[in-house]
Amino acid sequence: MEFLYKQTAGVTKNQEQTTVTRLKPYISQLRGVAQKNNYEDLESSINCCVDTQVVNEVKSLVQKKVSKQLAYIIVIGIGGSNLGTKAIYDAIKGYTDNVSTDTRPQLIFIDTISKKLLSNTIKFLLEKKVTSQQLLICSISKSGNTTETVANTEIIINLLGQHISDIASRLVVITNKDSDFWNAAVKRNIDVLAIPELVGGRYSIFSTVGLFPLAAAGFNIDELLIGAQEMRELCISKTITKNVAALSATILYHQYKKGKIIHDSFVFESELESLGKWYRQLMGESIGKEKNKQGKVVNIGFTPTVSVGSTDLHSVGQLYLGGPKDKVTTFIYSNNSIQKDVVVPKKRLFDELIPMINQKSSHQIMSAILQGVKIAYKKKRLPYMEISFSCISEKNLGAYMQYKMIEMMYLGFLFNVHTFDQPNVESYKIETKKFL
Amino acid sequence: MEFLYKQTAGVTKNQEQTTVTRLKPYISQLRGVAQKNNYEDLESSINCCVDTQVVNEVKSLVQKKVSKQLAYIIVIGIGGSNLGTKAIYDAIKGYTDNVSTDTRPQLIFIDTISKKLLSNTIKFLLEKKVTSQQLLICSISKSGNTTETVANTEIIINLLGQHISDIASRLVVITNKDSDFWNAAVKRNIDVLAIPELVGGRYSIFSTVGLFPLAAAGFNIDELLIGAQEMRELCISKTITKNVAALSATILYHQYKKGKIIHDSFVFESELESLGKWYRQLMGESIGKEKNKQGKVVNIGFTPTVSVGSTDLHSVGQLYLGGPKDKVTTFIYSNNSIQKDVVVPKKRLFDELIPMINQKSSHQIMSAILQGVKIAYKKKRLPYMEISFSCISEKNLGAYMQYKMIEMMYLGFLFNVHTFDQPNVESYKIETKKFL
Repeated sequence: MEFLYKQTAGVTKNQEQTTVTRLKPYISQLRGVAQKNNYEDLESSINCCVDTQVVNEVKSLVQKKVSKQLAYIIVIGIGGSNLGTKAIYDAIKGYTDNVSTDTRPQLIFIDTISKKLLSNTIKFLLEKKVTSQQLLICSISKSGNTTETVANTEIIINLLGQHISDIASRLVVITNKDSDFWNAAVKRNIDVLAIPELVGGRYSIFSTVGLFPLAAAGFNIDELLIGAQEMRELCISKTITKNVAALSATILYHQYKKGKIIHDSFVFESELESLGKWYRQLMGESIGKEKNKQGKVVNIGFTPTVSVGSTDLHSVGQLYLGGPKDKVTTFIYSNNSIQKDVVVPKKRLFDELIPMINQKSSHQIMSAILQGVKIAYKKKRLPYMEISFSCISEKNLGAYMQYKMIEMMYLGFLFNVHTFDQPNVESYKIETKKFL
Repeated sequence: MEFLYKQTAGVTKNQEQTTVTRLKPYISQLRGVAQKNNYEDLESSINCCVDTQVVNEVKSLVQKKVSKQLAYIIVIGIGGSNLGTKAIYDAIKGYTDNVSTDTRPQLIFIDTISKKLLSNTIKFLLEKKVTSQQLLICSISKSGNTTETVANTEIIINLLGQHISDIASRLVVITNKDSDFWNAAVKRNIDVLAIPELVGGRYSIFSTVGLFPLAAAGFNIDELLIGAQEMRELCISKTITKNVAALSATILYHQYKKGKIIHDSFVFESELESLGKWYRQLMGESIGKEKNKQGKVVNIGFTPTVSVGSTDLHSVGQLYLGGPKDKVTTFIYSNNSIQKDVVVPKKRLFDELIPMINQKSSHQIMSAILQGVKIAYKKKRLPYMEISFSCISEKNLGAYMQYKMIEMMYLGFLFNVHTFDQPNVESYKIETKKFL
């Protein structure tokens, strides 16, 4: 993973240095958290990626639950309980599940109360005559009392349970230790995995929340964690030129002060859209705050958006290039791929149309479009950064996600807000209960 | 389709009336366009829904191309060439294509250059041993020279053509009459359908662009058009209380002037996410402008966003309720559904958890969440409108899309911009060509 920003991010050397100086004590604090290597601090999600005990626990439960027969994993969870897993799954496999022929177990995400999603999933599994060993259900709720997750779990267990007698043995519950959900599961001898108390949902991808379903589906979680570990070293480093999290937090902070109130993650690989949505939660919940740390009403925060290249150039490209200059952009792309590329053939059906694409690979065409877009942004003085992956792999995705989680901690520090809470979501939940 | 806004949209009766008075001449102008019933005006997309000649042409081509064997329709197109079709397809069927057992032909959208999407689609079709009669390919490009669409068409025809000898006979080209693509197709005896010159991509859902692939896939285009026709009557009506397009354009205009620079389409049915993305293009390209009609630089326009309930309450809900008050929201939901609902069972596995959901249907739970959210928005004085569908059907989707296209014309008029062009996207295309 490479981070590029020079000459395009619109922040002066002086602004960069002043802000980085402000960050230094907090960078030291994060190094302290890493040294303690426990889960006693708000920032302790940075220790998930080196927690070999959790990795062993996850792997042994995978060994217990997963046989070669496993074909479908239902992930029941919402927000931080599934966005990270979905980001990695879609990036590497799931994005084309509508035309899938892959043999790796399919993940099916049940992320909200949707009768269509629920009934079609059940119908699909019953038509496939799914057996106990072919199925695994992960029910994930940090608090243990998420309405959607509990309701969906009950509905699925009930409907599939009419056909699979030992359905409860195929369920794994992932939640805070000693939550109501934890206790209910333990009481019924259902397998449980704990989420550390101070690791919040949007920071939990390298905890059991992400590791278990991904490992069960055959993804390489060791590589994912190696990517995260290497990135953690950079992102808690005093050497600011290496510390990409401190650098991009600095850039975002200054751009926000200049009125760039929207941060667009513009991915140039369609399969990264879910990664963009994972970041959207991370930024939306961490920085979007009514009050600052002193309790003063500030109504602050970026609105994070996700755009997909080249698709959205034909959708919101006009707005981005011509409309209000209220956005800072991060282009995210892969330089290469492990997959063999497809190429416009030499002998074409419509050879008189756009001859310049003859024998060009899909990667060459997309690169040309991205180059064109970057120059257009530069000419309009629209600030941007770039994340370049060598390829879309567990390791690179692990690095990116670790980088962004630490970036968000630095950004919360600069914004002077409580990065790890989400007090305002309670307001609608309280009202909702009155209608149930 | 019902439009609700009273007491929540944050616009005074006085503001509403002043603006509606400004709109009146343009409403008359649209009535004039409808009376002429041709394609000579920039606004003539409003005549697509009553064009029986096109419907007949589409139906006869469907009859020629579609047999009971048809199983897969590849739609190659980007932006306005596929977003409307995808909106309707996903709303009614496609959203759960990863767990699909439906027998209706599957639409596969190839909307950008993606080696993963292309190669997995080809692999999937070859593993299914797809025959000529099982396959249909719609290649859609208004200008006839969209790089992505032409490249994808060549790649797919080439790779599938190695297995299906008469592949060209399974191709339908939809483009402007006499475009290079049109001429190239006609020359090779490939079936073509025309898009009226003055009907732009983002206004083309009721032209051949949307009608042909949807009809071929077995959707009821008559119902779609009836919904659009009924809505057109309301939206060109002088009686403003009925004219929902004029009303919501008025509200959006005033909210923008008050600093609500983001318009969030917050859908409370996951299958409507693509409908939100269709609207995102419609608004982004129509209103997001560098210059006004007099050529003065204004850098104006809403940033349209799409949120999905209840999923995104666990993602950006904190930001929306606590962060900057820079958004106006439209909640979009369905009151009922033709599908049988799923219910939390009486006999539950974890009966001690959230007892209030006992025997509640998914619709009841989602309604309670939506009610809770609306009250939370009201308490925070966050302005919103509502679109309520009786059910998600072709007719209601047709009504919604017609309403939104006319709303956008009124909004463009109020913003004093050229609603139907997109001059700034040329800038990146010019640069791109240098790299190809």
